[in-house]
Amino acid sequence: MVHNGIEYGDMQLIAEAYDVLKSVGKLSNEELRSVFAEWNKGELLSFLIEITADIFGIKDDKGEGYLVDKVLDKTGMKGTGKWTVQQAADLSVAAPTIASSLDARFLSGLKEERVEAAKVFKAGGFGDILTGQVVDKKQLIDDVRQALYASKICSYAQGMNLIRAKSIEKGWDLKLGELARIWKGGCIIRAVFLDWIKKAYDRNPDLANLLVDPEFAKEIIERQSAWRRVVCVAISSGISTPGMSSSLAYFDTYRRGRLPANLVQAQRDYFGAHTYERVDVEGSFHTEWFKIARQLKN
Amino acid sequence: MVHNGIEYGDMQLIAEAYDVLKSVGKLSNEELRSVFAEWNKGELLSFLIEITADIFGIKDDKGEGYLVDKVLDKTGMKGTGKWTVQQAADLSVAAPTIASSLDARFLSGLKEERVEAAKVFKAGGFGDILTGQVVDKKQLIDDVRQALYASKICSYAQGMNLIRAKSIEKGWDLKLGELARIWKGGCIIRAVFLDWIKKAYDRNPDLANLLVDPEFAKEIIERQSAWRRVVCVAISSGISTPGMSSSLAYFDTYRRGRLPANLVQAQRDYFGAHTYERVDVEGSFHTEWFKIARQLKN
Repeated sequence: MVHNGIEYGDMQLIAEAYDVLKSVGKLSNEELRSVFAEWNKGELLSFLIEITADIFGIKDDKGEGYLVDKVLDKTGMKGTGKWTVQQAADLSVAAPTIASSLDARFLSGLKEERVEAAKVFKAGGFGDILTGQVVDKKQLIDDVRQALYASKICSYAQGMNLIRAKSIEKGWDLKLGELARIWKGGCIIRAVFLDWIKKAYDRNPDLANLLVDPEFAKEIIERQSAWRRVVCVAISSGISTPGMSSSLAYFDTYRRGRLPANLVQAQRDYFGAHTYERVDVEGSFHTEWFKIARQLKN
Repeated sequence: MVHNGIEYGDMQLIAEAYDVLKSVGKLSNEELRSVFAEWNKGELLSFLIEITADIFGIKDDKGEGYLVDKVLDKTGMKGTGKWTVQQAADLSVAAPTIASSLDARFLSGLKEERVEAAKVFKAGGFGDILTGQVVDKKQLIDDVRQALYASKICSYAQGMNLIRAKSIEKGWDLKLGELARIWKGGCIIRAVFLDWIKKAYDRNPDLANLLVDPEFAKEIIERQSAWRRVVCVAISSGISTPGMSSSLAYFDTYRRGRLPANLVQAQRDYFGAHTYERVDVEGSFHTEWFKIARQLKN
């Protein structure tokens, strides 16, 4: 089941890579075909990248041009992505890349509403794509590859942690590395990447998160500048990359020792006396924030 | 219930505004207090902004400095945010801002893991904050206010559409404008903003999405440059703004007439014969992608 959630994530990330390359980089279908075919020789080697390259090469049999451009931008689904997102919430596991893939499918389904919204905002002065950023095509292609790979690590980190949480809850004692090995055997997400996941769990079966495996951490560090560039160029161009940007937010949240969650907890204690912990002393504390603030104002 | 999901969103967005102003803009607690107090006189006027200003003014009664800095960055929760996210998935409604707030709470809870991850990536060459961007403080404050407001519109658009979907499913015939009016009466998300939501539904009770209400659309158009700047400066600084960036992705997805979902649907037809629709002809179609691609290769 989580396999399918991860598959949603992979497909969404590939769609975003396509969108950035096509909309910002102005790549033709032939160029896209050769980029994806090239990517399939490296770290992204996988069934989904391979079939994506194939898709860009196929001409429309009912008219001019390429078939992919004639396919309606509405994505169906069968419920497994939904189930993954709901399980993640139940188990208190953050799975934003998978969730954003599901949302992208929901929004793709609202084709008529989107066409209407596009008209509203076009009248307000901006088109589908915001005023053309000048980009170096070769650099963009290389950046997008790296962004796709780094996002993929985040997506699998979420999926693996979700499976582990369920395994703990149910007492299944699943071996995550073994699972990665099984998935290599012919399913839709089969990829060389799964070998590296297996190795990460071989190195440390109790790995808290794929992100902190030394090899994956190194790969992310090498790619993080490109990753940030791609998300920013997409944002500046008005292209949505919900999967890549939520993956990046996941990474930047997980790797920070101090988050602004102190403010949220202070707010909760202010309006609901939910108490808070302190950074320096053990225990639960409550402060009469309102009373003190009122005194300060007088 | 959805009220609480929206409350999660509001609190997360405020926490992100705080994080960007503090981490990138280097604002002191006193400066933050006066910024939020100022914001509370304008479009952001609300109970949560008011108490946030109060919080920044309160000194630690157990030591030096301000209390907010002593509060541990772990956020508790009581389940209503989770329920909202699960309902959204059930009803096929995209609610990424609310979902990202829930994820932020999950990740805040992993304090020990985060501290360890911070060490791993610090060793890899980057600290909590990436190399200092030079920013104009005054401009940043103004940009963050606009980003917060635009994100808030997206968050409420999601919440309202979730309630409507549930109302339709259950035959409740809820009046969304009326609901906004009731929420003004003393709950945690009370805000002048709710008046404008009521007006939007008064103008058009069948409004598909708050984003396309003429007034809200205008407000977003005016703020979108600032909004994009804030998310990009955060990304370049390694600050995660999951709520603001998922709100922006929601907006940029919803307002696009053509999404890359055509590729996802082509992939689904390739590996699972799920069929696709076309942009030019009615009906369901299936293509033997693999067979054609193999012929092309030979």
